[in-house]
Amino acid sequence: MPKIVDVAERKKAIAEATWRVILEKGMEGATVRNIAKEAGLSLGALRHYFSNQDELLVYAMDLVTENVNKRIEEVLKKSMPLQEQVLHVLLQALPVDQQSMLEMEVWFAYIAAVKHKKEQANVPFNALFSGMEKTIYGLSEYGFLKEGLNLDLEVERLYAAVDGLAIHALFERERLDRDRVIRTLVYHLNSILKDEAVLKLPISDM
Amino acid sequence: MPKIVDVAERKKAIAEATWRVILEKGMEGATVRNIAKEAGLSLGALRHYFSNQDELLVYAMDLVTENVNKRIEEVLKKSMPLQEQVLHVLLQALPVDQQSMLEMEVWFAYIAAVKHKKEQANVPFNALFSGMEKTIYGLSEYGFLKEGLNLDLEVERLYAAVDGLAIHALFERERLDRDRVIRTLVYHLNSILKDEAVLKLPISDM
Repeated sequence: MPKIVDVAERKKAIAEATWRVILEKGMEGATVRNIAKEAGLSLGALRHYFSNQDELLVYAMDLVTENVNKRIEEVLKKSMPLQEQVLHVLLQALPVDQQSMLEMEVWFAYIAAVKHKKEQANVPFNALFSGMEKTIYGLSEYGFLKEGLNLDLEVERLYAAVDGLAIHALFERERLDRDRVIRTLVYHLNSILKDEAVLKLPISDM
Repeated sequence: MPKIVDVAERKKAIAEATWRVILEKGMEGATVRNIAKEAGLSLGALRHYFSNQDELLVYAMDLVTENVNKRIEEVLKKSMPLQEQVLHVLLQALPVDQQSMLEMEVWFAYIAAVKHKKEQANVPFNALFSGMEKTIYGLSEYGFLKEGLNLDLEVERLYAAVDGLAIHALFERERLDRDRVIRTLVYHLNSILKDEAVLKLPISDM
């Protein structure tokens, strides 16, 4: 009787093996051969799930996005003041713990590697930008923001600040630890929030 | 009689050939063989200037840093109000024209590729951070900043905003063009500058 394998589980395990290979060897080491070895599969068995390297890498990246989205959904389910929810949603996209650091490493290696392959760069930048739009316009709509802000440029600025912090936390983790990332982000949010809506440190747990 | 070759010129030409190869083929295509071909040299001739790939890549990256520094020095020589000088200095680190876009592409490919090679990652992040410190503390010392700012976190925020804009300008150049990069940066600086020191758009030419 053939062994019953949960296809979704197996694909996930292969994607996670892909992450580990990228972390260890960089994108140029993320060959189908290395990934099969890391996943403990034969090349043939791996090809049963992914017919080529591109398909596998895209899947591995989609899993990163999916993980982040799941964590954001969890935040949105919780009952808390809007500005705290915003902070916790943004923190899901920042490398502030081991899991998100790993995701960010993989993500960064990937976007850098596909940069010069125009046809493959299905990187969901649009989703991130539109998340920032929802954040700023949502805070504004509910009356949480100071008067006189240029909301269009606040979106651009928040987006830049979050991704800048993410890159720096990734490359300069000695200097920019979790605590400093959070303090900078809270500082930025407080600079645009009305006085009565400012966030207090330490931030609430999730 | 042997041909006289200016070593510095030749090394620079090889570094620029390296950039072109990185742009076209990505870091994994930046082999000594490909670079020699692009530079119109034999492998042996190239090895006369650089004994291995790492040495060549480090040199090519140092040339990027050197170019940026030269442009910054040019800005600092000009006589203009401090806040305008700050803006123009920061713009030298942003991909807002063809040359700086090319440098940013190369720089990005490089830092991504050396990410997992700890021993090689001599990326001058410290220089960038310390430039941001000089900017914020300089503006403060000369009385250009609003009262009540947390200068330490303003440094972190400016650094994040600038690098975030740089990454987004690189990957989303349709949406985030030169004009929008400048508007966002001016908007950010104006949010921390005293009313009498705010920058006006359009910005002055250099």
